[in-house]
Amino acid sequence: MYTLYYSPGTASMVMHMALIESGAPFELKLVDIERGAQRDPAYLALNPRGVVPTLVIDGQPRHESAALLMMLADRHPEAGLAPAPGTAAHDAFEQWLVYLSNTLMSTFRFWFYPPELGSAEHPPQVRAALAAKIEGVWDYLDRALAAQGPYLLGDIFSAADLLLAMLMRWSRNMPRPASQWPALARLADLIRARPSWQQVYAVEGLSGW
Amino acid sequence: MYTLYYSPGTASMVMHMALIESGAPFELKLVDIERGAQRDPAYLALNPRGVVPTLVIDGQPRHESAALLMMLADRHPEAGLAPAPGTAAHDAFEQWLVYLSNTLMSTFRFWFYPPELGSAEHPPQVRAALAAKIEGVWDYLDRALAAQGPYLLGDIFSAADLLLAMLMRWSRNMPRPASQWPALARLADLIRARPSWQQVYAVEGLSGW
Repeated sequence: MYTLYYSPGTASMVMHMALIESGAPFELKLVDIERGAQRDPAYLALNPRGVVPTLVIDGQPRHESAALLMMLADRHPEAGLAPAPGTAAHDAFEQWLVYLSNTLMSTFRFWFYPPELGSAEHPPQVRAALAAKIEGVWDYLDRALAAQGPYLLGDIFSAADLLLAMLMRWSRNMPRPASQWPALARLADLIRARPSWQQVYAVEGLSGW
Repeated sequence: MYTLYYSPGTASMVMHMALIESGAPFELKLVDIERGAQRDPAYLALNPRGVVPTLVIDGQPRHESAALLMMLADRHPEAGLAPAPGTAAHDAFEQWLVYLSNTLMSTFRFWFYPPELGSAEHPPQVRAALAAKIEGVWDYLDRALAAQGPYLLGDIFSAADLLLAMLMRWSRNMPRPASQWPALARLADLIRARPSWQQVYAVEGLSGW
């Protein structure tokens, strides 16, 4: 039994999908970010930095989406969230998860939270630079997927694709959304067709892309 | 046999240490960043983004330091680079690696490369915000280590500590270097006393801290 502390449409979305895909029983607990519930002492005891998601595994609160996907994948080998440990494909799985996390998630954080760069709103050159950095990631990923897609691991679906589709969605209101890159658009279509994506939209009350 | 493409004192340093700790045979190949060798076509074929390190594992070029540490640790369980897979401590190992990568490595990148935020030099408020973000990470890590150190996994050394010590070193010329935090300073002392750290300093020609 897992417990996922989530907020609709945030970084917890990929864990929600992955839990559905795992087939394991789990319960959801809403962290109401609009009323600041991520700063409640009870939540901070689980997640000292006050971010979502937190996934409670065997009674232990764990963080960091990319790491949580590895933990879940390794615990449910039959679910096909990742290739078998010890294989080259598993190495690629870990590499993509870390890459998406440290390049894209971290830059999105600055994009969405200008105060973390010292301004209430980004000055134009900072905004342009952050957009260019994110677009450079889309360029890189699109080339990789065009060369050996349709998934990040080629023919093999993995939880890394769930993370990528979620991050693509985060760009939907940017000057150049990720769906403008053809191989990325194809990947997004594949992920949006999965029952886990549709179930998360229904349960979290999401709309649009 | 592994091949590590490295540049002295850069992010490849942690892989160099980890390879020594693994006991496995490896060869080093210098990527001469001062002459732009990371942009040579032969290197870009191994690492399309032109960054170090690249670790060639079973003929496959792999990237992303945090992921490389996982791959190496899992291949050499006897080396004690990580707790055994499937344990709670292994979950914590993955969580720390991803956290260090997406929070600290990514912010250091902006700190060291102002053009990635659109300026030749950071404006004062951006510089202050990036320093504050990095210092906030030291606060968080210092609290964690003070509560349950001396290592990130408590009494158990792991490759996550090698990564942390390397990242602490990167802060040495910042307004508040990480070594000003006592539990972090203790961890750095433990890592700097390891033969792998000393060997890397000798081979890479590093000095200072």
